[in-house]
Amino acid sequence: MVRRTGRRPGNPDTREAILEAARGAFAEKGFDGASIRAIATGAGVDPALVHHYFGTKDKLFLAAMNSPLDPLDVIGEALAGERGEMGSRVVRAFLHIWDGPRGAAGVALLRSAVGNEWTARLFREFVLTQVLRRAVPRLGLDPEQGQLRMTLAGSQLVGMAMARYVIKVEPLASAPSEALVAAIGPAVQRYLVDDLPGVFPVSARDPRD
Amino acid sequence: MVRRTGRRPGNPDTREAILEAARGAFAEKGFDGASIRAIATGAGVDPALVHHYFGTKDKLFLAAMNSPLDPLDVIGEALAGERGEMGSRVVRAFLHIWDGPRGAAGVALLRSAVGNEWTARLFREFVLTQVLRRAVPRLGLDPEQGQLRMTLAGSQLVGMAMARYVIKVEPLASAPSEALVAAIGPAVQRYLVDDLPGVFPVSARDPRD
Repeated sequence: MVRRTGRRPGNPDTREAILEAARGAFAEKGFDGASIRAIATGAGVDPALVHHYFGTKDKLFLAAMNSPLDPLDVIGEALAGERGEMGSRVVRAFLHIWDGPRGAAGVALLRSAVGNEWTARLFREFVLTQVLRRAVPRLGLDPEQGQLRMTLAGSQLVGMAMARYVIKVEPLASAPSEALVAAIGPAVQRYLVDDLPGVFPVSARDPRD
Repeated sequence: MVRRTGRRPGNPDTREAILEAARGAFAEKGFDGASIRAIATGAGVDPALVHHYFGTKDKLFLAAMNSPLDPLDVIGEALAGERGEMGSRVVRAFLHIWDGPRGAAGVALLRSAVGNEWTARLFREFVLTQVLRRAVPRLGLDPEQGQLRMTLAGSQLVGMAMARYVIKVEPLASAPSEALVAAIGPAVQRYLVDDLPGVFPVSARDPRD
């Protein structure tokens, strides 16, 4: 899952051992349940070394996922302008990252996310703690409906990434990015900000038939 | 990729050999380039037996992909009512299939689609020949823009399937299906039917930066 680019600090073996232990701990115990101390023990190193290499637990998780982006950057883009254009800015920022050199890491992350139940669980923790938990309050979304709005928008972005970068269906695969911003931005805008019919509380449950 | 359910005609080994040869041929030569004769030769059987087991080449492809649905059924649902409600009907039909017993085959198909370049190519052929080629004329879409409209709608449906059934992020994972129809239907409606800003021809190419 991890592809190293550029120069990184420290011993690569130690670094990789920490990331491996982190992936196991995050998948098993969730982000909140996995302590830096336990991850350090799993990697056979001192907890101070984990902090030294990766900084915060958030940054350790992003490194363990080999995420092509820090969700905070996309959230920052979303906030950097008119609220009525938020959807377009989010789509543009997302495409800019995936169309660039970090796109390969994005495809690897998607492949990993659907690989099996274990990796799907890791990706779900990533979405919950690194995207939703940070974005809902920062974007000023209603806590009750914010998670629904974000996951709807995320489903469109993930689906676009699947079609454009993984399955590579035309014309999406080769479309100019601004054409996609124009086509998809309003859908994301509606999910994030506009009135949504049938908005339902986070605790909604459906006994599937 | 193939999980057999219920009773099927013929010798299971022969059947599986044909499906295996079909997957190889469709991935290598595309749907149009792969002949029933070549597939039969690859499986070491008579072409008449392929027709006997699977009927048309379309049906052979659906069987080889272990598709949870025949796209013609969803297209039929799309056409079975007001054009102004097409998006909602498509989302409802899609959710009905995935929420039911065939959902597991759908997850397996998605896992397979993102597995590697070979399986992604097979899935792309599936989208092109079994979904787009059939749906664009049947839905009365402009040939030039129909493929863009369909792939945009498909990206939202695939993204919803990823979020609800593979990554299982709440509240999408447990949301009542009619709430999702209300939330996502209008986006799919806009992609399929309404005016789209920035609609571009199928041949559009973008020198990525």
